[in-house]
Amino acid sequence: MDIDMREELFHQAKTWVKEAGEIIRNRIKDPLTIDTKSDAKDLVTQMDRAIEYFFVKRIKEAYPSHQLLSEEGYGDDVTTLDGTVWIIDPIDGTMNFVQQKRNFAISVGVFHDGIGEIGLIYNVIDDVLYTAQRNNGAFKNDQKLPTLNEQVSLDKSVLGLNHFWLCENRLVDEKVMQKLVKKVRGARAYGSAALEFAFVAEGTLEGYLAMGLAPWDVAAGMVIVNEVGGVTSNIDGISLNLLQKDTVLTCHPAVHQKIITEYIQKGRK
Amino acid sequence: MDIDMREELFHQAKTWVKEAGEIIRNRIKDPLTIDTKSDAKDLVTQMDRAIEYFFVKRIKEAYPSHQLLSEEGYGDDVTTLDGTVWIIDPIDGTMNFVQQKRNFAISVGVFHDGIGEIGLIYNVIDDVLYTAQRNNGAFKNDQKLPTLNEQVSLDKSVLGLNHFWLCENRLVDEKVMQKLVKKVRGARAYGSAALEFAFVAEGTLEGYLAMGLAPWDVAAGMVIVNEVGGVTSNIDGISLNLLQKDTVLTCHPAVHQKIITEYIQKGRK
Repeated sequence: MDIDMREELFHQAKTWVKEAGEIIRNRIKDPLTIDTKSDAKDLVTQMDRAIEYFFVKRIKEAYPSHQLLSEEGYGDDVTTLDGTVWIIDPIDGTMNFVQQKRNFAISVGVFHDGIGEIGLIYNVIDDVLYTAQRNNGAFKNDQKLPTLNEQVSLDKSVLGLNHFWLCENRLVDEKVMQKLVKKVRGARAYGSAALEFAFVAEGTLEGYLAMGLAPWDVAAGMVIVNEVGGVTSNIDGISLNLLQKDTVLTCHPAVHQKIITEYIQKGRK
Repeated sequence: MDIDMREELFHQAKTWVKEAGEIIRNRIKDPLTIDTKSDAKDLVTQMDRAIEYFFVKRIKEAYPSHQLLSEEGYGDDVTTLDGTVWIIDPIDGTMNFVQQKRNFAISVGVFHDGIGEIGLIYNVIDDVLYTAQRNNGAFKNDQKLPTLNEQVSLDKSVLGLNHFWLCENRLVDEKVMQKLVKKVRGARAYGSAALEFAFVAEGTLEGYLAMGLAPWDVAAGMVIVNEVGGVTSNIDGISLNLLQKDTVLTCHPAVHQKIITEYIQKGRK
């Protein structure tokens, strides 16, 4: 992607993300209409839809040739990552948005010919914006995030993972995951994949594991984590395919392979 | 306790908590000396000790007749809750303090003849202070917290609980706790008991379960949760004894008994 074009897209995306955040903050106390999607825990509100529409309208007007892959259905039926693709989750962590009115994020990734060029994750209520452009480093607001290059062992790591990893599941023997939880210094569960990617990037988590994430949950996070030297793959260590759902493991580089070979592989179904 | 005296203690405690928070924020980037206590995950730093000493010194000077029960050993050997007892955790969530430099709290409870009179939980980095005085309501900074009186079902609840509840443990059959996690809308793990009490009080969690908490982890939280109509007990539904460690279940009143009878009791060891 042309550098000038990327710079333009980055500033445009940043402006829209901030505007969308402002809309959410202004309406955070409005009554919500809450629907469910794939199951009773898969929530969607009129705010998710309104914010997605906000992005779709602006992107389609400004960049009609770009594709748009997004959560709530206003985007395109994307079957190839050729060209420029915006990958958007208007509210990542909808359950937190509904129940807590915080701890959710707007997630916007821009890929070009399959390569992640731009990532933005906006913690709307705390007004903290994580950003990255490929090969330009990652930022938390205006502060550059340091590279994850210090030595870290698993027993001094804190991991983000959903409690379901420790219940019977179709992916990994839960007994093995229980061993992992006992091995690490701490386990956390925040309920927003985008924010957990951002926490890995800023070094407040050494890793984050998820059972089934869609492209819009991970696109921005992958770009940001990559810029600090973190590693993102599925739980088998294979690069994510951004045209489908997949498991996710995003980590400090010192623990990524260890989690796979010493734990996940030993219990993989 | 005399109301004027309580008012004085409350304002004094609030001033000290804010001052201590300021000290922590000013030194948050200083290098840490990290020791372990009961096990490799039970961390303590020179900051925990310094902040505890800060409180002990001031309380002993101002109120020499008061007892002081605290985490790092500068307090008294408290064997009775008669009279006025300050119960203090200088840094609740030391692991978060060490690894994340946020998501920890100062917790100060004041009990008189065994009754919780004052509670303060200070999220230092976010500068959010939760306070309560008995029969006077609970506050988040200057905003009064509403009473937890709406109807809430378990399947629309979000619970805070450590991942260890889902691993083999000496308290409750983990299979039963896995059922609970599948029943509720969401599970979270934040790594600070005091903050999780505060989240129950403000309604961002419907409940919080912990396997083994000390008096300083719960004293302030109990007072604050109680002021919004929440219920705190051990996992058998029995009132906590603040002279020893115990399991903890603090909840919105609509789900407290259900968690005990429909889940914990069915797997209690």
